[in-house]
Amino acid sequence: MTKHSATLALDEAVQARRAAGQDVLHLGFGEAGLPVSAGLAEALADAHLRNGYGPVAGSARARAAAAGWFGRRGLATEPEQVLFAPGSKPLLFALLAAIGGDVVLPTPSWVSYAAQAALLGRRVVAVPVPAEAGGVPDPELLEPALCRARAAGARPAVLVLTVPDNPTGTVAPAARVAAVCAIAERHGLAVISDEIYAELSHHGTAPSPARYLPERTVITTGLSKSLALGGWRIGFARTPAGRWGQWLRRELTGIASEIWSSLAAPMQAVAAHALDDPPAVTAHIAAARRLHARVATATHARLLAAGADCRPPQAGFYLYPDLAPAREALRARGVTTGPELATALLDRHGVATLPGSAFGEPTTALTLRLATSLLYGSTPRQRHAALTAAEPEALPWIGPALDRLGAALADLTDHRAPTPQNAGATLG
Amino acid sequence: MTKHSATLALDEAVQARRAAGQDVLHLGFGEAGLPVSAGLAEALADAHLRNGYGPVAGSARARAAAAGWFGRRGLATEPEQVLFAPGSKPLLFALLAAIGGDVVLPTPSWVSYAAQAALLGRRVVAVPVPAEAGGVPDPELLEPALCRARAAGARPAVLVLTVPDNPTGTVAPAARVAAVCAIAERHGLAVISDEIYAELSHHGTAPSPARYLPERTVITTGLSKSLALGGWRIGFARTPAGRWGQWLRRELTGIASEIWSSLAAPMQAVAAHALDDPPAVTAHIAAARRLHARVATATHARLLAAGADCRPPQAGFYLYPDLAPAREALRARGVTTGPELATALLDRHGVATLPGSAFGEPTTALTLRLATSLLYGSTPRQRHAALTAAEPEALPWIGPALDRLGAALADLTDHRAPTPQNAGATLG
Repeated sequence: MTKHSATLALDEAVQARRAAGQDVLHLGFGEAGLPVSAGLAEALADAHLRNGYGPVAGSARARAAAAGWFGRRGLATEPEQVLFAPGSKPLLFALLAAIGGDVVLPTPSWVSYAAQAALLGRRVVAVPVPAEAGGVPDPELLEPALCRARAAGARPAVLVLTVPDNPTGTVAPAARVAAVCAIAERHGLAVISDEIYAELSHHGTAPSPARYLPERTVITTGLSKSLALGGWRIGFARTPAGRWGQWLRRELTGIASEIWSSLAAPMQAVAAHALDDPPAVTAHIAAARRLHARVATATHARLLAAGADCRPPQAGFYLYPDLAPAREALRARGVTTGPELATALLDRHGVATLPGSAFGEPTTALTLRLATSLLYGSTPRQRHAALTAAEPEALPWIGPALDRLGAALADLTDHRAPTPQNAGATLG
Repeated sequence: MTKHSATLALDEAVQARRAAGQDVLHLGFGEAGLPVSAGLAEALADAHLRNGYGPVAGSARARAAAAGWFGRRGLATEPEQVLFAPGSKPLLFALLAAIGGDVVLPTPSWVSYAAQAALLGRRVVAVPVPAEAGGVPDPELLEPALCRARAAGARPAVLVLTVPDNPTGTVAPAARVAAVCAIAERHGLAVISDEIYAELSHHGTAPSPARYLPERTVITTGLSKSLALGGWRIGFARTPAGRWGQWLRRELTGIASEIWSSLAAPMQAVAAHALDDPPAVTAHIAAARRLHARVATATHARLLAAGADCRPPQAGFYLYPDLAPAREALRARGVTTGPELATALLDRHGVATLPGSAFGEPTTALTLRLATSLLYGSTPRQRHAALTAAEPEALPWIGPALDRLGAALADLTDHRAPTPQNAGATLG
């Protein structure tokens, strides 16, 4: 049984609660929650005559735009290295299918990597992330984990990295990425680098594994996060130069041709426009980056105040607090696992989050993933105001929401004796 | 190694030959080759604010429109039975993954069914189609084939039917569909009914297997063929009512959530508009249906005149001639297999077709699949003229193309001794 993607399932559950009149603070879904950049609607409308199938990998125009986009970010790229798809999710699935073998994942990591591996009948070798940042396995733990996995009959062949990371909202330091890539090379692993948050690194760029293992790293990315276009489903991959890259490209194109044919031509036109880095798009992403950073940082302060451990946010709109310091107080309120913690927050306080177990952690971990991006507003006007506000974290629909989160956590983690309310009563 | 989809690969090869200055008559690709219907560009442009992810299965609006569309075609449908996807290809893949077990296919059948089964590690049980029409296995041969397959260790669990059919361009008679469904029921097979050509049946509707095996038939379809929107990638499925249908829906939604998330929201808006059957769309499809029927019928006459066997076209824009009556003449020209026949037509006459072996037939079969839809014109003006012409088969860019096809085949099948030209010389 393939379960509904945890993130998408929670989003649909929240929409249903809201439709039933409940006031839900939605921190459970990684939708960028911002308006469409100027220029993109026109690119979409202008493409309405493009109704033919076109090449599987994408049009020459779109592939050239993507190659230029990578080039301006320091990765020289030929158009034939690029392949478009309806989102980066199908690319990740097709890459796992193409490369073959078992899948090495950092823990925690994004919900769909392990689910895709399971769909393909592959084993997952899970390796915890280091303390300072997620998205890569702890280099100290990676090599022993590979040896143990091989001894247990697994055939680890591909390592998935997330730089910057979802769920932790951090950027792995270059030295960590380099160390992990060196181990991958020694062990003959290919690297899939999911870089869909790269444009949203709060303090500049992120260290792509493609710099450290250039001939064996394939990058997946898309416009869902940087341009808040999740609903337009625009993803693309950069396969490496060299012989392995050529082989991978043939395999990947073959699989793409049998599963999805091509990215919709009007969406390729949108991508071609956006990936040329026109000033309106660049400014839109810069404003989004600033907004994400400010609200995530304000949220981080609330989490620390409520007694959580939490890595400082460095990219995108995620935080990954650990409530382990409040384990005793939580136990007094009947909460002993991450899923129970997320359920208590939703049922008692109307705060929707995902437990760390959705990202591969044990259920005993008292971790949560919070996405702050759906706080930006419930109307286009509010979202636009958030994008341009000097202090978005103080806006009347954002500041009180952060206070509500802080109060909900404080209520559950308060060292004083539990009240009837926080011991188990549910919202009406 | 997953090969590039045969149809998409040939299309890209033809585009490359044309870019190199060759004059290729392209009969190898099932692109509908027509303009976009009035109203759809507006629906696409109006949807530019829909940038959120939305439900995996599709918006309530789009699902209601699809349910109404099926209802008006005699299949009462609730919105929750509908799931949208970026094309029907990913739906077929996800359905094979969800249902599990080995896959029973009519032979010949569309190129991607067997390729998808192979990607999923499933066996294919191939059963020839009856003489009068393709898309369903010959009922006389189906039951013995299932028994033989089981004896050989296969677990046949799902039967894929194509009604109307690609590659044969025919519509299986209702009695055949009913007989096949009865056998499927006896053997516990689920049925996937690919009905993407249903709107293009030349003489009315096509008998959906969902009428004969209602609780175990899932229908896949889309707008790529009826509305010539292959490049917009709009597909949808109708899962059956009842308990199995509910189970399938959960599985299918789970797999969809992990592979593609959802159909792009602007494309859902286009689908919602088109599936309401507005008059402009209905008229566009009626004109397309008439055009496909006239040109396919004119092509059929050329094929018979050149000595081929060929079922009369009944739907869409395909013909599936068999050159077996000319086997001796072809042998004298060095052509003994279907792939050699297709290669001779392309290299010696610049006529691009696909051999029957791409559709699961043995290479010894001298069958070809011809798609006539790319003859409608090389410019929007020509395609529009074809759509509205009283006698499109006589237009100056269509009639001579049919003559060229007839002459090419006649040259290869002529009973007189081969000339140096038709014995193997290639086009410059």
